[in-house]
Amino acid sequence: MAISVVRNILEANERISVQNREMFRKNKVFVLNLMSSPGAGKTSLLEQTIDRLKDKARIGVIEGDIQSARDAERIADKGIQAVQINTGGACHLDGNMIRDAVEQFDLAALDLLVVENVGNLVCPAEFNVGEAAKAMILSVTEGDDKPMKYPLMFQESKILLINKIDLLPYIDCDVNRIRTEAKQLNPEQTIIEISCTTGQGLNDWCAWLEDQIRASV
Amino acid sequence: MAISVVRNILEANERISVQNREMFRKNKVFVLNLMSSPGAGKTSLLEQTIDRLKDKARIGVIEGDIQSARDAERIADKGIQAVQINTGGACHLDGNMIRDAVEQFDLAALDLLVVENVGNLVCPAEFNVGEAAKAMILSVTEGDDKPMKYPLMFQESKILLINKIDLLPYIDCDVNRIRTEAKQLNPEQTIIEISCTTGQGLNDWCAWLEDQIRASV
Repeated sequence: MAISVVRNILEANERISVQNREMFRKNKVFVLNLMSSPGAGKTSLLEQTIDRLKDKARIGVIEGDIQSARDAERIADKGIQAVQINTGGACHLDGNMIRDAVEQFDLAALDLLVVENVGNLVCPAEFNVGEAAKAMILSVTEGDDKPMKYPLMFQESKILLINKIDLLPYIDCDVNRIRTEAKQLNPEQTIIEISCTTGQGLNDWCAWLEDQIRASV
Repeated sequence: MAISVVRNILEANERISVQNREMFRKNKVFVLNLMSSPGAGKTSLLEQTIDRLKDKARIGVIEGDIQSARDAERIADKGIQAVQINTGGACHLDGNMIRDAVEQFDLAALDLLVVENVGNLVCPAEFNVGEAAKAMILSVTEGDDKPMKYPLMFQESKILLINKIDLLPYIDCDVNRIRTEAKQLNPEQTIIEISCTTGQGLNDWCAWLEDQIRASV
């Protein structure tokens, strides 16, 4: 019974998601669905990414949070259009929320639209929003056992960013274990180690993103 | 429409949860629902807690994970009965899952049953499982903006453990901001700063837990 409710919700979401994807494709916008646990560094990564790419690509951001507009304010401080979605209780974004939020953008004037999902390593991976690709961040402080405990997000994400790599000397985390188990779940996945504090890996990340944007034009 | 589906699920869960709570009360077991983001340190805290309390209280553990039995194995290695629930896709435990898992315990032979929820800062706070109290961990590496972004768990938890306090010198996190905003959301909440690496705060945490156990007899 519970499973059939979930399936109906997912099917309804998938229909809207397909319509969104077609709208983004027509407007030649590369849409990235960025996911992670709370506090893994999604907004910090976006700030760093905007600094590096804003002269090369026209960027928009949709921020998803249960409550508060803090993340949208951080992005707007960078001179980028940001729309905040407050989900109320919902622990993930869905296609319908994105369809509404997108009305506030001029899609024809964008190359890249990043959807920063609600901080949650589970449900966001189940709900497409019409994105061209999913990206995920795992911070090393979350521990090296996460791929096998939360496999779906690793399976769904085209790229895995292992963040806070500068904290490795102070914690017990085996990055090779993360890499090995993520590869078992998703052999095609690109993996980059990054630090938004030191800047490590961010040029590689931005190069990957530019390739995706070029491919979607 | 979607909201009414969610409400029906929550109401059905609440009925089971009330039955569970009555069963635990009759057996004089203090049941704690332990929640946090992935990797905030729930299992590490349990390992440390078992080391300190296992001669003073009879402890059982229910482990909730999407997949894998790794956490139950870590607890079993401490000589404590642990039952692993694999939720499949579900991002939280509910009353029905706990009712099934509890059948594997002799409740009359327990003083404390800890339910380690799925790593998720959102949905677990919405579903009672029959616990006497909810506890949450926030690790300082998740950032100091979390109370206002994920308010429900802070409002629902009788105690907030601020973990990984040993990492403060290496990161940008204002613990006083966490304390101030958590107090706004939940003025009655107990807050303890801890480190499962250095042991800081763990005696205070165990003293709190012993008080709760004594009060439930």
